[in-house]
Amino acid sequence: MTSPYLDKHRDKLDAAVAASASREYYSAYDESPSPRVYGESAAGEGKAAFEAWQGRAFPLETPGSDGTVSTERSPFGFELGVSYPRAHDVDALLTAARAGMRAWRDAGPEARVGVGIEILDRLHQRVFELANAVQHTSGQAFVMAFQAGGAHALDRALEAIAYAWVEMTRTPRSAVWEKPGKVPLKMEKTFTVVPRGVALVIGCNTFPTWNSWPGLFASLVTGNAVVVKPHPSAVLPLAITVQVCQEVLAEAGFDRNLVTLAVEDPADKLAATLAVRPEVKLIDFTGGNAFGDWLELHATQAVVFTEKAGVNTVVIDSTDAFGAMCQNLAFSFALYTGQMCTAPQNVYLPASGIETDEGRKTPAEVAAGIGAAFDRLLGDDARAVELLGGVVNDGVLSRLEAAGSRGEVYVASRTVTHPAYADATVRTPTLIGLTAADSDVFEAECFGPVAYLIATSGTDESISLFRSTVQAHGAMTASVYSSSDDVVEQMRDAALDAGVALSENLLGGVFVNQSAAYSDFHGTGANPAATASYTDGAYVASRFRVVQSRRHV
Amino acid sequence: MTSPYLDKHRDKLDAAVAASASREYYSAYDESPSPRVYGESAAGEGKAAFEAWQGRAFPLETPGSDGTVSTERSPFGFELGVSYPRAHDVDALLTAARAGMRAWRDAGPEARVGVGIEILDRLHQRVFELANAVQHTSGQAFVMAFQAGGAHALDRALEAIAYAWVEMTRTPRSAVWEKPGKVPLKMEKTFTVVPRGVALVIGCNTFPTWNSWPGLFASLVTGNAVVVKPHPSAVLPLAITVQVCQEVLAEAGFDRNLVTLAVEDPADKLAATLAVRPEVKLIDFTGGNAFGDWLELHATQAVVFTEKAGVNTVVIDSTDAFGAMCQNLAFSFALYTGQMCTAPQNVYLPASGIETDEGRKTPAEVAAGIGAAFDRLLGDDARAVELLGGVVNDGVLSRLEAAGSRGEVYVASRTVTHPAYADATVRTPTLIGLTAADSDVFEAECFGPVAYLIATSGTDESISLFRSTVQAHGAMTASVYSSSDDVVEQMRDAALDAGVALSENLLGGVFVNQSAAYSDFHGTGANPAATASYTDGAYVASRFRVVQSRRHV
Repeated sequence: MTSPYLDKHRDKLDAAVAASASREYYSAYDESPSPRVYGESAAGEGKAAFEAWQGRAFPLETPGSDGTVSTERSPFGFELGVSYPRAHDVDALLTAARAGMRAWRDAGPEARVGVGIEILDRLHQRVFELANAVQHTSGQAFVMAFQAGGAHALDRALEAIAYAWVEMTRTPRSAVWEKPGKVPLKMEKTFTVVPRGVALVIGCNTFPTWNSWPGLFASLVTGNAVVVKPHPSAVLPLAITVQVCQEVLAEAGFDRNLVTLAVEDPADKLAATLAVRPEVKLIDFTGGNAFGDWLELHATQAVVFTEKAGVNTVVIDSTDAFGAMCQNLAFSFALYTGQMCTAPQNVYLPASGIETDEGRKTPAEVAAGIGAAFDRLLGDDARAVELLGGVVNDGVLSRLEAAGSRGEVYVASRTVTHPAYADATVRTPTLIGLTAADSDVFEAECFGPVAYLIATSGTDESISLFRSTVQAHGAMTASVYSSSDDVVEQMRDAALDAGVALSENLLGGVFVNQSAAYSDFHGTGANPAATASYTDGAYVASRFRVVQSRRHV
Repeated sequence: MTSPYLDKHRDKLDAAVAASASREYYSAYDESPSPRVYGESAAGEGKAAFEAWQGRAFPLETPGSDGTVSTERSPFGFELGVSYPRAHDVDALLTAARAGMRAWRDAGPEARVGVGIEILDRLHQRVFELANAVQHTSGQAFVMAFQAGGAHALDRALEAIAYAWVEMTRTPRSAVWEKPGKVPLKMEKTFTVVPRGVALVIGCNTFPTWNSWPGLFASLVTGNAVVVKPHPSAVLPLAITVQVCQEVLAEAGFDRNLVTLAVEDPADKLAATLAVRPEVKLIDFTGGNAFGDWLELHATQAVVFTEKAGVNTVVIDSTDAFGAMCQNLAFSFALYTGQMCTAPQNVYLPASGIETDEGRKTPAEVAAGIGAAFDRLLGDDARAVELLGGVVNDGVLSRLEAAGSRGEVYVASRTVTHPAYADATVRTPTLIGLTAADSDVFEAECFGPVAYLIATSGTDESISLFRSTVQAHGAMTASVYSSSDDVVEQMRDAALDAGVALSENLLGGVFVNQSAAYSDFHGTGANPAATASYTDGAYVASRFRVVQSRRHV
């Protein structure tokens, strides 16, 4: 079978499949928003397209909707004022979602994957518009919104499609089976990929595209209909996404309601209603532990992929590059105001200090080193906001304000004035000193710009606390600094036990909170922070089934 | 990495991987119990080995056991009298199960897969003993027990290992990632397969090996410890299995308790206790809907693979080989007294009759044709018992006895006298005539030698009933007889909607209730009868996770 869209995108698919197998570097979408890459007018046109949505009704129809809802305010200090159809009649929504599934199933993997990558290309054409939409819903600074919310999200989506493609095509469309014997038996067999049903994607506030697209595209290209339920504070990036999905689906002759947008007023509890519907067989969720755990317990009719929260950990044993270590850590704490599910929080280090190329450093001196790095990175407000972005919501702010009472304030948070958005709330990270006895504090996620430097009796205790805390409370990332091969080896072992990816001695332009599509897995599913990983076989294999028929020949 | 066992079995692994991808014929274990294949003494030695267990304490230690239990009686009419350690202290059992997991994880996929196939080879060396054990716990006739319980079960186990191997090795052990740029970034990355935890395998009475081995070996070679909880009436085949697993694990230097046998008195409800333990992360279950549904709802801490019950369906529209059709169907009804999860139950056909090469046949005439085939297959008691085996338990017998009151008895069941086992309970199948109005009867599984011929208003209604009944109540198999390409095409479409494998116009030596490893999927997971398929990517991919580490180079 061929598909015009697949033919067009075949090289990209093949490259993504190859990179996912080799784990070597690959990217299909340039991460630089430079005019040299995207042209002189792209940035301005994208910004204008974003601004044109403000105060308007977004032109999408949601089956079964009733009235509209408008719930978005930019963390940079203004109302977006975009209104969307408010999902209401769930029966009507799910009936419409399913209406086109048979034709979508019968089109086969080639057509579906072709449509999927065509959607990515169209989203790429609107990447500046999307970056503005991500910026003004998540609070990410523009360049980060362009990269994490645009180019990197597209790469993660293509990665998910590549995995789904490999999984769907590992069984041939047909085969001839011939069993030798006195009377040989010969059968022709046909194998068809069939979808599971309706897939529900529940978006989050901070990474509306990056965290939603992998599940959306993995479910869509495996034949399912997808209902996208955005976070009420981050609708626009997913509204644009659904608009593009529908545009390409319709052009290709499929039902546009194979992808629908289900927007709610926060009081509607729409996700909980949808999640337990018998039609819903797949759920992708990014968000807090409470609702994630609820989904895992209650949506037993569906396969549930969750990415929740954990306590990301750094173990510092020693370093031969103290300045670079502090700089690398400071960047990881500061990036997007620590509002990443991958940002480090707990730093375990010996109370007696660590050996470095600049002599022994006590926890207070390590904090001072990181504080000095903050000064370099964040000392100038105009530069600082490009790294920090804005505080996404009041919860982050109140956690930050409460953090100081929990331990010794090694580095205080500073209020930054945004030169362009006077009403934006911008804060630098705080570093709080704790001891190993403060487990009631450091065993819970404190989402936002708060890091704990936790003094231990030594690296053995640091590693032991790392292992046990992650096993009990989960983590998306971990890292270690040590100039001892033996300590690094112990950390590798502990990271395997804890089921978390480990970054070792990061000093340069790679940060623990960043993962590269096709090479780094994001999340493992092996600790309580997540049941999903972007992207492994388990993330795609159960999104469809194979149904066979057989006959004598 | 190399492994001596993997080197030894590499050709077999590669052949299994290749066959699973091409779906062409392959078998690694000869299905013929002939002395020409296995040698003159093999059958006698195997029988003697089986008989030697009778009345003895089986030499296995179960951590945390208390006393012994002896629960098996041959359906051919005698007590086995084998006693086993009775599982008691679940904490102790699970602690022991987990003790060897780290070394097993660190050994890597090569060593684990090598050990897995070595276990299969050792089980193959004891295949006659296993066949006797399967015969005298399940009630299967000897040749079937040898094939389904021995050779074919080994092939299904190897298939599961092959899928797990492909899945574990699709990510390399290490990779170098180099991102171009003004300052190129270069990282070395290590990827490690880590297990999920303890895997629980819950065996069934009728196929103690065939239905348990795929999950057991898929979980084991992906690094998990496996607790095997046999059906109280079919312990011995799995006790032998665990004995061989422990023997090979110990020889290879691993903890023998990586595979343990947890035997219970039926009143112990051991499976329910184990299934919700936090250590248990994988569950493979074969059995009835009630407990399977319970597991899916309550064992939310685990990935649950169930194979339950459904209503397997035949749609008869027309045929140009009436005699061969009746013969094929009769064999499928009679094989192992219909006590297969794949045996057909509901036969939909037009009340007005079907067109055949022998003229139009009414439902009563079709029943008579099948009845005549029964006479040929089962008319002689000595031959009949080799096809029928024995009635596995009183539940089957009471369902058979109650079936006659539910409709018109087209063909009555006959009592067969076993020439070798006078106390065996052996019955031929009954065919009961119903109409489409009798949905309260035919929408439930009647496990055993009961088939319903259901008169419909025509093939359109037959197909419609097939689709809706399977969607609501599940099925493991479906088949169609029609000389119309259009009807066959409609059935293919309905089978995709219902999510069940379809066999078309089977007339020769292939039967709807049989599936061939590496080529036919057993179950789909796409209808209520099962959440698992032997074997697809979804069956293995979530049994492990990949944990990475990365560092600058």
